[in-house]
Amino acid sequence: MPVLVMKFGGTSVATLDRIKRAAKRVALEVAKGYDVIVIVSAMSGKTNELVGWVNETSPLYDAREYDAVVSSGENVTAGLMALTLQEMDVPARSWQGWQVPVKTTSAHSSARIEEIPSDNIMAKFGEGMKVAVVAGFQGISPEGRITTLGRGGSDTTAVAFAAAFDAERCDIYTDVDGVYTTDPRIAEQARKLDKISFEEMLELASLGAKVLQTRSVELAMRYKVKLRVLSSFEEPSDTAGTLVCDEEEIMESNVVSGIAYSRDEAKMTLQSVADRPGIAAAIFGPLSDAGVNVDMIIQNIAEEGRTDMTFSCPTDQVMRAEKALNDAKDAGELNFADLIADTNVAKISAVGIGMRSQSGVAAKMFQTLSDEGINIKVIATSEIKISVLVDRKYMELAVQSLHDAFELEKA
Amino acid sequence: MPVLVMKFGGTSVATLDRIKRAAKRVALEVAKGYDVIVIVSAMSGKTNELVGWVNETSPLYDAREYDAVVSSGENVTAGLMALTLQEMDVPARSWQGWQVPVKTTSAHSSARIEEIPSDNIMAKFGEGMKVAVVAGFQGISPEGRITTLGRGGSDTTAVAFAAAFDAERCDIYTDVDGVYTTDPRIAEQARKLDKISFEEMLELASLGAKVLQTRSVELAMRYKVKLRVLSSFEEPSDTAGTLVCDEEEIMESNVVSGIAYSRDEAKMTLQSVADRPGIAAAIFGPLSDAGVNVDMIIQNIAEEGRTDMTFSCPTDQVMRAEKALNDAKDAGELNFADLIADTNVAKISAVGIGMRSQSGVAAKMFQTLSDEGINIKVIATSEIKISVLVDRKYMELAVQSLHDAFELEKA
Repeated sequence: MPVLVMKFGGTSVATLDRIKRAAKRVALEVAKGYDVIVIVSAMSGKTNELVGWVNETSPLYDAREYDAVVSSGENVTAGLMALTLQEMDVPARSWQGWQVPVKTTSAHSSARIEEIPSDNIMAKFGEGMKVAVVAGFQGISPEGRITTLGRGGSDTTAVAFAAAFDAERCDIYTDVDGVYTTDPRIAEQARKLDKISFEEMLELASLGAKVLQTRSVELAMRYKVKLRVLSSFEEPSDTAGTLVCDEEEIMESNVVSGIAYSRDEAKMTLQSVADRPGIAAAIFGPLSDAGVNVDMIIQNIAEEGRTDMTFSCPTDQVMRAEKALNDAKDAGELNFADLIADTNVAKISAVGIGMRSQSGVAAKMFQTLSDEGINIKVIATSEIKISVLVDRKYMELAVQSLHDAFELEKA
Repeated sequence: MPVLVMKFGGTSVATLDRIKRAAKRVALEVAKGYDVIVIVSAMSGKTNELVGWVNETSPLYDAREYDAVVSSGENVTAGLMALTLQEMDVPARSWQGWQVPVKTTSAHSSARIEEIPSDNIMAKFGEGMKVAVVAGFQGISPEGRITTLGRGGSDTTAVAFAAAFDAERCDIYTDVDGVYTTDPRIAEQARKLDKISFEEMLELASLGAKVLQTRSVELAMRYKVKLRVLSSFEEPSDTAGTLVCDEEEIMESNVVSGIAYSRDEAKMTLQSVADRPGIAAAIFGPLSDAGVNVDMIIQNIAEEGRTDMTFSCPTDQVMRAEKALNDAKDAGELNFADLIADTNVAKISAVGIGMRSQSGVAAKMFQTLSDEGINIKVIATSEIKISVLVDRKYMELAVQSLHDAFELEKA
């Protein structure tokens, strides 16, 4: 039998009624002849409750105990989903991570999956079981302790199972009905994409389109897992959702596929840095050591041997970045006049694999923003993406005008 | 280091503050030089919530999935307790049942513990860990699936660990401060017992004094585990609670130690049964096959070859008993005129190891009830117990008058 992986996120299993609705979708796929592996998240709100208790108990918690506590939510859903399927006369049973076993590294609370032996579950499929319900987000370390994969880890669990079981497809059921050209709450003309390439999805995911966890997309790309994002609240249909797939499977596409935005990026400027060889290393070495994820970097033209250096990083890492740079200054490893953090910015990005072969995208983007009177503070580009930092107050306007300019409402 | 087992019930770990309070007690014992095994229940209310979900999802649930779901509550408490201890600088870690492993039978939702290897936890004690926090109520079957021990199973877990680790004592922390001569809510003169024998505790537990789970007392008796019941809401003291121990350790005791009662017993009467050899087997065979727990039995003197047979069973088994007996009648295996169920009764029991050597206890009990005008419907006796069924409305009066008659308020 072909294997299908179906993953249901927290909102899709938030209540017993929703679990039943999800189970009906599973039963439909079983009726089509699939052996189904269902990956479930915790009922929505549960993980936050557990994380809250851990933080309140021990702010600098032992991550091994954090994992033992936080993983329990998925176990509950897995058992309830198996029972619901059994009630529908679909042969099903639940597996917790350690029972499969989902073997991970020992990096508690952000572990990586190393191996998923398929023999245990395949043997049960061979005995007539139709659905294996697996608790997402969790695994077991070489030391035999429970690990978790980090927030959103159930997407990664799903893709890893799809790869390990050579599944025909991995369907990710969530509360949105697919991947859009941009956030429909900001631009009402936003259009759902039928297909999107792994590369584009990766850029969109990492840029704040919170549909899929970045690691799950990376994994799907590496193992060529056909990934479909769809809503568990829509009527089932073969064309529902968005298929995330190899570039080759997408016949034709717009130059730009989507406009993403992020409010969580801050702009940091080091004023009057000595412009000498090695200065970039002197700045970004300490930041890297401090675990700051620097995204965009811009260096002004030097005047009289001094220059300004600007970079962006997640807003919640600003304090860490300030400390790292001030420490480097105190240690005499770095010289600058002032360090200014601007958290009142937003990042806007245009993403599309078409950019590789088409020129003029950047020019059109800058012109569009300029026509709206929006000042660009920092620019960064990759092969399939152009990002700019603008004042936070222009965020909606920037997204809407770019969506219009690239005619993303048209298929 | 000597090992101490401490078990905290649901109300003792109902909130993070209560977990902290419990952890302080654990730290006190660690300071005295003990290696401590802490057994925790789920936070109060959690197990009921999970059981409710399972029942709503699947009334005739697969007990394997029930166990997978319901066991998760204890895992949460175990992790939180370990974190709380770590915050107090007490080296601690949590274990789930399968990690120890607590090996049980495959009788899901009412499994029995078969073996608890101590090497894993002892090795950690050897490395300097001071507290092993173990999720109570759960284990792992030979098939590698999660099992639970039935409601109240954490008491059994605690006693089994005390036996496996040859613990100096097993302290059961609960929301009452010990075992009383009777329920203080019914007789305000009820007195806390400093010590009680295993045998008496067994009778009291099985008679509805819901302080300890019956199986845990059986296990403690078999393995000579010194068991102490005490409140986690009282100030710590060496004389707190009630010690459940071997008869020999109790120097002197009253003839009667306690008066127990139960509202959950029903009286069933088969009218006009043919009085012939084998009739008892013809009645109680089908009841046993149907899983009805018959407690008391009384047979009237036969007249003209017919007799009445009365027995008691738990109220929630009345329908099952009726079906079993009517089926036997329909099959021609049994002949009776009528079957009458009376659920408006209560069972009152006097328990005491002193009864073995003292006579007159039964006479005094019957006289006391008679003086109060309470009619006795059924009588049953064991070596250390006399039980009677009376009308439900006399329950409180019967308990109070017997407590007075046997002077249980005096030590």
